[in-house]
Amino acid sequence: MRREDMRKGDLTRQKIIELSAPVFNQKGFAGAALSDLMAATGLEKGGIYRHFESKQKLAEDAFDYAWERAMDKRFEGAAAIPDAVDCLIHVIRNFQDRRAGLVPGGCPLMNTATEADDSNPRLRVRASRALARLIRRVRSIVQEGQRKGQVRDGVDDAELAVLMIETLEGAIMIGRLQRSDAPIALACNHLIEHLEASVRSVDRQAIAPASSPTRLIRAAKRQRG
Amino acid sequence: MRREDMRKGDLTRQKIIELSAPVFNQKGFAGAALSDLMAATGLEKGGIYRHFESKQKLAEDAFDYAWERAMDKRFEGAAAIPDAVDCLIHVIRNFQDRRAGLVPGGCPLMNTATEADDSNPRLRVRASRALARLIRRVRSIVQEGQRKGQVRDGVDDAELAVLMIETLEGAIMIGRLQRSDAPIALACNHLIEHLEASVRSVDRQAIAPASSPTRLIRAAKRQRG
Repeated sequence: MRREDMRKGDLTRQKIIELSAPVFNQKGFAGAALSDLMAATGLEKGGIYRHFESKQKLAEDAFDYAWERAMDKRFEGAAAIPDAVDCLIHVIRNFQDRRAGLVPGGCPLMNTATEADDSNPRLRVRASRALARLIRRVRSIVQEGQRKGQVRDGVDDAELAVLMIETLEGAIMIGRLQRSDAPIALACNHLIEHLEASVRSVDRQAIAPASSPTRLIRAAKRQRG
Repeated sequence: MRREDMRKGDLTRQKIIELSAPVFNQKGFAGAALSDLMAATGLEKGGIYRHFESKQKLAEDAFDYAWERAMDKRFEGAAAIPDAVDCLIHVIRNFQDRRAGLVPGGCPLMNTATEADDSNPRLRVRASRALARLIRRVRSIVQEGQRKGQVRDGVDDAELAVLMIETLEGAIMIGRLQRSDAPIALACNHLIEHLEASVRSVDRQAIAPASSPTRLIRAAKRQRG
């Protein structure tokens, strides 16, 4: 194959992945018919299978692509924020606000995890890896915050990451079912309150007058444990 | 039709629903092939379609059956608990502990909601109704607690119900993907802490010595808000 043709082949392959991703994310692996994939890509069956050995392989690559997009959106702008708790809050807000740039159909992780867990071991492995990557990324923000004294020592970075992710994923599901933004806003506000009350280092909290209720609470908490 | 035959027909119909529910809950609507349903029920195609006009109708009834089972398990023993916050904690613990009696394949609400939201409007309506019923039931516990002075006045019963449900549903999803009970235990402990700290009426909390940190926190909170 000439170099030019190969490059063109790679481009077509990538284009098929991008155009198929919304079909798989909206209809699921089992629900995505070949005719849906043909309609989305504008290709005949042979045109698709020239680039992918099977629907399974295409679905796996489409999931990875959809997840890459989701990760980009959810961590957009996070690296520029010096305080770890502010950075976590920014990521939480991204879950709420930056859903426009995602592959249509809701969170690819939730969609793929719920469909694949009992029926498609290879897709399940992709979803499992995607979750591990998301957890690692949130944990590394918490760990960095602990090194810098921005996050309390007693906070378990793995537990905080899982709690944030499970709350947000559940909220996306409920919000989509209710066709409402309220459930995700509720989850975000709840998590942000939790971060301010139990995660942000006490020394870094906004300074309040010596006799203020906030000070009293903090003093009491320190005394307690 | 003779009365006896009709009764037998109803029993067969119910048996088909019960035996099909795990297939739909594990494989999804699109993923459940007629051959899977035939294998699960031990019936031929004609034997199934004598009782259901379509796979769609069977899937809808199977969802309702799976949800009924889930509701029963999750609220088992709740009615006997006089304190509303204790009752909510009991329901949360049921989400964690009473998964054995559910239709296999994870939470029917999450499975059906994620699959149906973009692709199956009729199943989506069933999932939506199921969620509304779950929310109503949790809300009524909170409202009862407010009438009895067990839950703080400022608590929004609808918001608390949605927060509990979205956190638990997200945790079930993450736990199934990780094949671990830790994510659901984490969600339960977090919600219980939230109920004790921000929902249970201050007067009902365990009485602490006048100078204890807990007292100070409560005094400070009352002063603040």
